[in-house]
Amino acid sequence: MTTDGSRQRSWWGWGWEEQQLDAAALGGLGSMVVERFGVTPRDPVRPDLAGVDVPEPRLEVPDALAALVTADGEDRVRHSRGNAFRDVARTLSGTLPRIVDAVVRPADADDVERLLDWCGDAGVVCIPFGGGTSVVGGVNPPADPRPVVSLDLERLDAVTDVDPVSLAARIEGGALGPTIEDQLRPHGLTLRHFPQSWEFSTLGGWLATRAGGHYATLATHIDDLTESIEAVTPSGRWTSNRLPGSGAGPSPDRMLLGSEGALGVVTAAWMRVQRRPVFRSQATVAFGSFSRGLGAVRELAQSGLYPANCRLLDPHEAMLSGAAAGDASVLVLGFESADHPLEPAMARALELTADHGGRCPDGPKHRTGDRPSARSASPLLDTGTSEGGSAAWRRTFLSAPYLRDGLVRLGMVVETFETATTWDRVDELIATLRETASATATRLAGSAVVSTRITHAYPDGAAPYLTVIAPAGERDPVALWDEVKAAVSDEIVTAGATITHHHAVGRDHLPWYLRQRPDPFGAALAAAKRELDPAGVLNPGVLVPTT
Amino acid sequence: MTTDGSRQRSWWGWGWEEQQLDAAALGGLGSMVVERFGVTPRDPVRPDLAGVDVPEPRLEVPDALAALVTADGEDRVRHSRGNAFRDVARTLSGTLPRIVDAVVRPADADDVERLLDWCGDAGVVCIPFGGGTSVVGGVNPPADPRPVVSLDLERLDAVTDVDPVSLAARIEGGALGPTIEDQLRPHGLTLRHFPQSWEFSTLGGWLATRAGGHYATLATHIDDLTESIEAVTPSGRWTSNRLPGSGAGPSPDRMLLGSEGALGVVTAAWMRVQRRPVFRSQATVAFGSFSRGLGAVRELAQSGLYPANCRLLDPHEAMLSGAAAGDASVLVLGFESADHPLEPAMARALELTADHGGRCPDGPKHRTGDRPSARSASPLLDTGTSEGGSAAWRRTFLSAPYLRDGLVRLGMVVETFETATTWDRVDELIATLRETASATATRLAGSAVVSTRITHAYPDGAAPYLTVIAPAGERDPVALWDEVKAAVSDEIVTAGATITHHHAVGRDHLPWYLRQRPDPFGAALAAAKRELDPAGVLNPGVLVPTT
Repeated sequence: MTTDGSRQRSWWGWGWEEQQLDAAALGGLGSMVVERFGVTPRDPVRPDLAGVDVPEPRLEVPDALAALVTADGEDRVRHSRGNAFRDVARTLSGTLPRIVDAVVRPADADDVERLLDWCGDAGVVCIPFGGGTSVVGGVNPPADPRPVVSLDLERLDAVTDVDPVSLAARIEGGALGPTIEDQLRPHGLTLRHFPQSWEFSTLGGWLATRAGGHYATLATHIDDLTESIEAVTPSGRWTSNRLPGSGAGPSPDRMLLGSEGALGVVTAAWMRVQRRPVFRSQATVAFGSFSRGLGAVRELAQSGLYPANCRLLDPHEAMLSGAAAGDASVLVLGFESADHPLEPAMARALELTADHGGRCPDGPKHRTGDRPSARSASPLLDTGTSEGGSAAWRRTFLSAPYLRDGLVRLGMVVETFETATTWDRVDELIATLRETASATATRLAGSAVVSTRITHAYPDGAAPYLTVIAPAGERDPVALWDEVKAAVSDEIVTAGATITHHHAVGRDHLPWYLRQRPDPFGAALAAAKRELDPAGVLNPGVLVPTT
Repeated sequence: MTTDGSRQRSWWGWGWEEQQLDAAALGGLGSMVVERFGVTPRDPVRPDLAGVDVPEPRLEVPDALAALVTADGEDRVRHSRGNAFRDVARTLSGTLPRIVDAVVRPADADDVERLLDWCGDAGVVCIPFGGGTSVVGGVNPPADPRPVVSLDLERLDAVTDVDPVSLAARIEGGALGPTIEDQLRPHGLTLRHFPQSWEFSTLGGWLATRAGGHYATLATHIDDLTESIEAVTPSGRWTSNRLPGSGAGPSPDRMLLGSEGALGVVTAAWMRVQRRPVFRSQATVAFGSFSRGLGAVRELAQSGLYPANCRLLDPHEAMLSGAAAGDASVLVLGFESADHPLEPAMARALELTADHGGRCPDGPKHRTGDRPSARSASPLLDTGTSEGGSAAWRRTFLSAPYLRDGLVRLGMVVETFETATTWDRVDELIATLRETASATATRLAGSAVVSTRITHAYPDGAAPYLTVIAPAGERDPVALWDEVKAAVSDEIVTAGATITHHHAVGRDHLPWYLRQRPDPFGAALAAAKRELDPAGVLNPGVLVPTT
């Protein structure tokens, strides 16, 4: 979907073109760069679609599929990148290494099946494309001699069935976050899966990448909200039973979850939905050190209280977001329920945070009643109370990708790292990653800013999230990015953590993913891939290396 | 483990030989049969090991492995059956179709690796054996021309590492339930996974079969307690990282969970453990009909209150267990926490049950403080308060398999069916299965008793559990069992439910499992099996049909 009435999707960067930083905002950002990094940023790159070299498409589509296919240049460019730093930098500089040969928009699963059949017969690569928000090179055309089509599922965007008794809904794979919520809201229901990309990403994309969402505890990943999946593979249809739980062999759904388009195309899924929350309790808790805050998060995660929100921001992130002014780390804590008041849970949670030195001078805020129907354009403002540090943080969260794009235009390198590890190693891992990111970026760029937050918390561990910003100066930003990425990723895998908690593997994380996963599992996955996709049509080079 | 000091494991039936029904108890059971079914039961079969024909072993073990191997006849018989009705009936009648050729007891993962290498080279089938409590033909030697060894993991029974910060422990695959709890208790920790087989089943078995445990909501399966798994496959070692959560490709652990010994031998796992509960709240709620009780269970499962126990018994089960006297269905409801009092949760839960006509005349019972160290012999008595219907139910739960064995000796057919489906279909499915079980068994046996309970509850569905008892009369009990099993299983799969919620697939459920799972997934799983186990050594015929 490239337009929404008055708005247009950015062809080169994140989200809506209209929300990208204007000249004045870029000027302000430039001043911040001068102040913080002591360097003068580059003149902002001006996006220029005409500067992108779009080669002739290398394929001929049979008549039976022609109505679904376009070879429009701009459309092809839009489908040849995700939203990683590297994608934005290369798109802006007109150096996207490869452009897909065509974009296909199937109307239903039958179309997908016919397309995959043709791809297999004609020797064409097919890359499933949801919202294109991958930050790990998940949708970029690979270095493959075959022609490449991008399979955009945007026409499969309906909530086709709602089961209010089981609290479940059948949702098509190409439905965007807001589209899903808009269709569930009249039923008093919500999927309540809000990744940062929510406005621009799809159910199929979430399932294929095991996306992380709104909940800090319990159902942290889309996996946990999945009842059954329908997919089309080159070897036929894959439909699992709608089951609330099962012990019948390894879970079929769990083989598709995280398969990143390499095993099949997710056309629909029955998802567990929920009644819209009525009770909400929220608090902002300040800690003298990030480490003390971590102790509190651990306690909360092991308490069985199950906060919906439990996000720890280091002083830098807290200040940037406006959640806190000074040098404190801040815990954004929230409970929500459609069934019962949350005062007891919040009271106990604040006791636990106080045990770790947490201060909550404003006290908790409790609210009852559904919010007025939220506009699709205000995605995450429905996820908690709108007062205080929590709302401030959410605004920052949503605008961060636009800020990132502005920094890219100014020649800055911006990257995020997210991982998960067990509690016994969280402190040390964060220190190592911060040090590695900072040292590597400083060595290459002269200076760097590294900030940290905890996005999700489990009884046995947590998911740290690092942001690194550095001025590329005269260097190639992408080459600089590569070096920082490699250095930090090496440390993640060496520490036995995961190369990704919720950003997926894609092409960018593949070398580290291959070191992380058990070798026999890799062999089993490759065998499954060969069986399901004997011609190697689907997203080659993702998860299973092409040799 | 065939002995435990003074006690000895039954060679033909469930559990401890000493706890099998004695002559007096069998007499009493026989009177009950007369009263309930109007038939005179058979004279109790007398177990006779000498009546079992044990053929000469068909293999020669190399010197390097000889110390791990036994060809003792009784040992081989003990390893040639699980604990399904069919197993007990056939063992008692001396008609076990096949006896394993040897039993191997590795001391460590290296031994397992050497054994699998030898099996591949020598053309020997290997069946991983935990506690041998399979009720689905999971450990029986298959109809395969090759010699068969049973790989008993009993020597791998240690909790080797405890991580009190992350609340995790590394536990070897052959550790029995009580052994695990005994080793965790000094740390103030518990795995809190209590399947009915707990006393006699192992961690490796639980993982391989996706066992269902203590919790009625949230962590219903062992899957949810799993942090990482170590396995030996014929193609090498498989060790996943210790991760609290991850989005890096399809989960390796989820491929092993439910693999039933067909892909690898689970030698150890890092499991999520918990602080021992301090706060407990328990209530017994009666309903005028099972259907009203179901409505309450649904409400509870969708409330976000997360009861630890939420087991609904129909009037027959409630009466048998002593949880209630008359014609009421009974909900055994319990909350537990190591962190906080549960009065608010229980109060809200009782409001919800009252909305569905539930009566709790005795009110809830709240208790604080850890229980005195439970003896291993009293497994599930540590799972809640010891008063009222809950404790009565647990005693029945634990003695049920011995009762089953007594009924088998009297010529009765006893089978359980367990499944799961979404809430919109639970009522209808239960009615269909009850009707099918009752009609089929009555047609074949003249009369039958069918009872029902709900064992686990999810926001989107529930797990019904049926018990069928019928007198075989002059008929072959196993043939009768086969017909009832097939009729009910057909209905389960036709309804789109799962052929097993927590008993696994084994050989008994395979035909229905093959109908249930998505075909492309079956092909992918078969390809994974060929890759990991090219010689088809591991538990052939389970999950992946041998053609």
